[in-house]
Amino acid sequence: MKIHKINLLTLILLLGTIFMAFAEDGSRLWLRYDQIQNQQVLMAYKKQIAAVSFVANSPTQKVAYAELKKGIVGLFGQDAIFSSTSNNTLLIGDSSNKEIKQLIKAGYFKDLGEGFIIKVVIQNQMTKTIIAAANDVGLLYGTFHFLKLLQSQQDVSKLNIVEKPKIKNRILNHWDNLDGTVERGYAGTSIWDWHKLPGYTPTKYTDYARANASIGINGSVLNNVNSNSLSLTKEYLIKTAAIAHVFRPYGIKVYLSARFSAPIEIGGLKTADPLNPEVQQWWKDKVKEVYQYIPDFGGFLVKANSEGQPGPQNYGRNHADGANMLATALKPYNGIVMWRAFVYDDKVPDDRAKQAYNEFKSLDGQFMDNVLVQVKNGAIDFQPREPFHPLFGAMPKTPLMMEFQITQEYLGFSTHLVYLGALFKEVLEEDTYSKGKGSTVSKVITGEIDNHQLTGIAGVANIGSEANWTGHPFAQANWYSFGRLAWNPDLSAEEIASDWIKLTFTNDNVAVNEIKNMMISSREAVVDYMTPLGLHHIMARNHHYGPGPWVKDAGRPDWTSVYYHKADNIGVGFNRTSTGSNALAQYHPEIAKLYEKKETTPLKYLLWFHRVQWNEEIAPNKTLWNAMVEHYYEGVKSVEEMQNKWQKLDGEIDEDRFKEVSQLLAVQHQEAKWWRDACLLYFQSFSKLPLPAGYEKPAHSLEFYEQQRFYFVPGIKN
Amino acid sequence: MKIHKINLLTLILLLGTIFMAFAEDGSRLWLRYDQIQNQQVLMAYKKQIAAVSFVANSPTQKVAYAELKKGIVGLFGQDAIFSSTSNNTLLIGDSSNKEIKQLIKAGYFKDLGEGFIIKVVIQNQMTKTIIAAANDVGLLYGTFHFLKLLQSQQDVSKLNIVEKPKIKNRILNHWDNLDGTVERGYAGTSIWDWHKLPGYTPTKYTDYARANASIGINGSVLNNVNSNSLSLTKEYLIKTAAIAHVFRPYGIKVYLSARFSAPIEIGGLKTADPLNPEVQQWWKDKVKEVYQYIPDFGGFLVKANSEGQPGPQNYGRNHADGANMLATALKPYNGIVMWRAFVYDDKVPDDRAKQAYNEFKSLDGQFMDNVLVQVKNGAIDFQPREPFHPLFGAMPKTPLMMEFQITQEYLGFSTHLVYLGALFKEVLEEDTYSKGKGSTVSKVITGEIDNHQLTGIAGVANIGSEANWTGHPFAQANWYSFGRLAWNPDLSAEEIASDWIKLTFTNDNVAVNEIKNMMISSREAVVDYMTPLGLHHIMARNHHYGPGPWVKDAGRPDWTSVYYHKADNIGVGFNRTSTGSNALAQYHPEIAKLYEKKETTPLKYLLWFHRVQWNEEIAPNKTLWNAMVEHYYEGVKSVEEMQNKWQKLDGEIDEDRFKEVSQLLAVQHQEAKWWRDACLLYFQSFSKLPLPAGYEKPAHSLEFYEQQRFYFVPGIKN
Repeated sequence: MKIHKINLLTLILLLGTIFMAFAEDGSRLWLRYDQIQNQQVLMAYKKQIAAVSFVANSPTQKVAYAELKKGIVGLFGQDAIFSSTSNNTLLIGDSSNKEIKQLIKAGYFKDLGEGFIIKVVIQNQMTKTIIAAANDVGLLYGTFHFLKLLQSQQDVSKLNIVEKPKIKNRILNHWDNLDGTVERGYAGTSIWDWHKLPGYTPTKYTDYARANASIGINGSVLNNVNSNSLSLTKEYLIKTAAIAHVFRPYGIKVYLSARFSAPIEIGGLKTADPLNPEVQQWWKDKVKEVYQYIPDFGGFLVKANSEGQPGPQNYGRNHADGANMLATALKPYNGIVMWRAFVYDDKVPDDRAKQAYNEFKSLDGQFMDNVLVQVKNGAIDFQPREPFHPLFGAMPKTPLMMEFQITQEYLGFSTHLVYLGALFKEVLEEDTYSKGKGSTVSKVITGEIDNHQLTGIAGVANIGSEANWTGHPFAQANWYSFGRLAWNPDLSAEEIASDWIKLTFTNDNVAVNEIKNMMISSREAVVDYMTPLGLHHIMARNHHYGPGPWVKDAGRPDWTSVYYHKADNIGVGFNRTSTGSNALAQYHPEIAKLYEKKETTPLKYLLWFHRVQWNEEIAPNKTLWNAMVEHYYEGVKSVEEMQNKWQKLDGEIDEDRFKEVSQLLAVQHQEAKWWRDACLLYFQSFSKLPLPAGYEKPAHSLEFYEQQRFYFVPGIKN
Repeated sequence: MKIHKINLLTLILLLGTIFMAFAEDGSRLWLRYDQIQNQQVLMAYKKQIAAVSFVANSPTQKVAYAELKKGIVGLFGQDAIFSSTSNNTLLIGDSSNKEIKQLIKAGYFKDLGEGFIIKVVIQNQMTKTIIAAANDVGLLYGTFHFLKLLQSQQDVSKLNIVEKPKIKNRILNHWDNLDGTVERGYAGTSIWDWHKLPGYTPTKYTDYARANASIGINGSVLNNVNSNSLSLTKEYLIKTAAIAHVFRPYGIKVYLSARFSAPIEIGGLKTADPLNPEVQQWWKDKVKEVYQYIPDFGGFLVKANSEGQPGPQNYGRNHADGANMLATALKPYNGIVMWRAFVYDDKVPDDRAKQAYNEFKSLDGQFMDNVLVQVKNGAIDFQPREPFHPLFGAMPKTPLMMEFQITQEYLGFSTHLVYLGALFKEVLEEDTYSKGKGSTVSKVITGEIDNHQLTGIAGVANIGSEANWTGHPFAQANWYSFGRLAWNPDLSAEEIASDWIKLTFTNDNVAVNEIKNMMISSREAVVDYMTPLGLHHIMARNHHYGPGPWVKDAGRPDWTSVYYHKADNIGVGFNRTSTGSNALAQYHPEIAKLYEKKETTPLKYLLWFHRVQWNEEIAPNKTLWNAMVEHYYEGVKSVEEMQNKWQKLDGEIDEDRFKEVSQLLAVQHQEAKWWRDACLLYFQSFSKLPLPAGYEKPAHSLEFYEQQRFYFVPGIKN
């Protein structure tokens, strides 16, 4: 083995100032590696890292090495003389490395998995900064972590870090169609160019892998859950294999959404019945073929018997029958099945919120051990706020996988600044009480509560073809925070935001704090101007752009808004207590008992669980109507405050992104007012109560808002 | 007026090496401004430009100033002390500038129009490098020109340049739909995000304007010629106005494709008859509204009575009636109508190639003076090679506008390296003989031949959402060469290629020559492997991806391939001589006479004008069949040569683009073989003649090629 050293003298440093030549378009995400301007910090780093020792043989080691080179050259920004290891050295390697063996005890590597150790050791007056891991991908993660510390200008002189992921499968779900459109995508089209695959794999694919690996994401479902069987044909598998080839060194596995009826559509069979031996054999053969092209294929994600997708119920079988058939085929190759619990059949239930629990709870224990049941964070559908899904904690024998939506289908698309780290955390911290107090959702999905080894978390990606990947510069933070929380759900939304800001915008403390405050408050803002006090599912039909509390004649009642808010002249809200749909009974008695009464229900979930009269006091001297008005106006005011905060950053942020965010905040402000005015006018038509004094009047009539029509709204097939 | 000086001390130079941090994705196009590595050149430039004097007040002056700053800081790459104008100075201004008045005689500014002067004057041992113009946009063009000289490391010490455009309206046509798809687009989706407009105008729009202004393009038709009336509603006009606002300082006007039936669809009228007073008034009102939002709106592009688009013929009127109605409405605002001659009615003509001439020739002299008739370069449809369109030279009283297709609908989409500069030049240099020898197509469209003041040229854009704008890194050269030829059709394809390579890849002479040779040979290569010897329109149906000489049952005969090649057991080719369709009669007698006989017809047009027997000798000792085989194989061989040339550049080109182009050349090679084998097998089924000895056998049977099916091919509605 040859010792590779970074000799910066051999790196030609183009001193060009590319940053000015074209736009600061955000394409570099959080891996910018601009030169450190703080000379004190820079000098300290250069002194501590005067040489690098890194054996880089395997493909993963090579990409880690390349990343380190990019990072150090970018951050240090000039040619330094890296003479030899007789200097202060950055030492990178696994437990087989002789020097590392001497410096880090073997025990540390036990159970380290994909984790890493970063440790500074002073020996013979020489500083050794060690990045060590038990395997290649751990080394890669450690390298990215160390670069993050440098980028965010942390003190690295006394590091002693041991990190490993708390969730095993950390996966992005792309709702990308083969024609290039992205369902609920607001950042352009799919980055997968199926037409040009497998021959052409642009560097964008590598950058995608780098960005994901840098935050610990280790899986990617490439195609939409509303899937097309073509994905499973030889032609498309070869295309998928080309993507897998790019991802492999970065520790990222590819997965595919599998269409349950594929045996019929591309297999020529008459049925897709999971208990039919021919069907079972077809899937075994298909899976064998998949692994011929992609030896480390991750497995299948399945949306079955939901919103028109085929599934086992078409044949009188249940979800476990369907999942297990696929799991059997995948098992020999260590592939997994992620079976979605977001089900939705032709019958309209008395309460949509109850359906998944009703269908899945009884199947607990019936799934094979390579099946995860993938459950959305809430029981409806990625609303600005939902109580946690009652399945969490209710299926102890089944590993449940969290499904978050990173793309902002219901949260302002890509024109609203909404930091989802706060939303994700709120859900993760909710207590299911399944094994007593402290049985948080987070502990359910990390497997701690029920002792599962197979664990997972999925995020529906907000990535598209736009230069900045996510449409809104701040939407990058939602991708970032998903990855960070997937690695460690115990991180706070605040610390993740801080990291992201430093990597993305600035290390200036005052600015970091201003931006962090914007981000943290943004989540409550969107709840306030869209769906305060537990309101939900009151957006416009189909495209979901803008308010639509008046929606009543959709294809089925549970696609309407009136089904969910049930407003009339007396009050508003969905009674899910024991006197209503009793969805509450799906939760642990601790919660059911608490939420059964209005007084002990958190205000944020009030109308989710209760019908409340317009004039009812929900807080001292505050009626529901007045509280609702207050929230809607508060939401708009919060956006104005974000605008003010952002304006203060003029000069601190590059011109391009400063202007883009300013424009988008103005759009958000307009749309927040639109939501507020439309919803309040609508609810006022029932409450017959006036706006309390001092509030700005709505700009238009209710009829005006109801008559708004939009063409070519993104995210759906127009 | 304040004199602004670039003081480089005040520009913070981040010495970061961003070039390594993320991919070299081609997004900077030909405006890279990387630091000049040749120290001799750099020192000479720094000496000559030790100070800058530039009065920048108007918006256009300000963007010119900003561009100069970007350019100089990027190219010079460090802080230089620019003390005062007592040094060697770069002096930029118009004829009102006192210093410039003394150095450049007033006469030079007469008739300069949008042009500029760049001149070096030595005075009192001081060097003044002057960029002067008669107006703002001239200054901007001059600034870009000067930056181009620096980027391509020209000697600028003795400049004495006067440049002005030879064509007045230099326009990109975007076939972009309002839903974000691009008809015949192969570089992702539309860069216009109608949903986020008008509130959000990302920096990409500014970069688009910069790139276009840098090559002299001064107009942009934002929407598809197959247009949607919604574009003309108030809502969309406001969106268009936001784009126009970004473009305005860059001298770029926006235009819209107008749907002829808009008065019915959005105006509520019963008819769109151009002679109906209500219809006329509707357009007058609509145009008035347009100019309220966009005071410098350029005008309308119209595709009428073609491929299902509505038009005046629906009401028994002719194209002049339709164009003049719109021209009347636009006239008060100096707007123009660009009326397309690509017409196509329900009746299938005896020869599609004759239709435009038949419909338009007789209308010469009937169009208002603010109407241009926009004519495709050839009479069929943007084939790899076509003879020039017979309308050029045939309508002396009407200004004809050239329509080139930059997007490679029939030339390999965005995976084939085909330099269209060579195609454009071939057309521009053809002689129409309309006013005697030397009456080139170029002189028809510059207005020289028939003394037109209103002149224009359009290119159907190949721009999309992909990071590198055009899909193939080399497709940028097609956008670039269109712009350069629009400014000056007398430039050679070679010199434009040289410039582009230097700005885009490298200034290394050996590399520039290698790449230039690739580019120049690429055009003949694609003709050879797709449609040699005058073959045309033999691609696959509808999506046009790959060969389809067997296509015979399309919606109508002139949508098939067999209509155009007419192959049978005796021979192949379309007889357009006097014994056939006599399309030749539409050309000047000089040409008609020459092409009437096979022997005097250039081989490249042989099968366009003649039916030839398989065994007929078309060159000494060479039968048609053998020549055809030779061309097809030569085409593939040329691609192999491009691959070899490119491989030699390893290390000279950055890794990212080197790899991307390598991959794309491999795809092109595969597809060239596919074209060759499929076409030769097909024609062989008629000729019954063997492949001459020594040629590689086709990989598959004819049936295999005929049965190929592709899903989700880009560029069409799937």
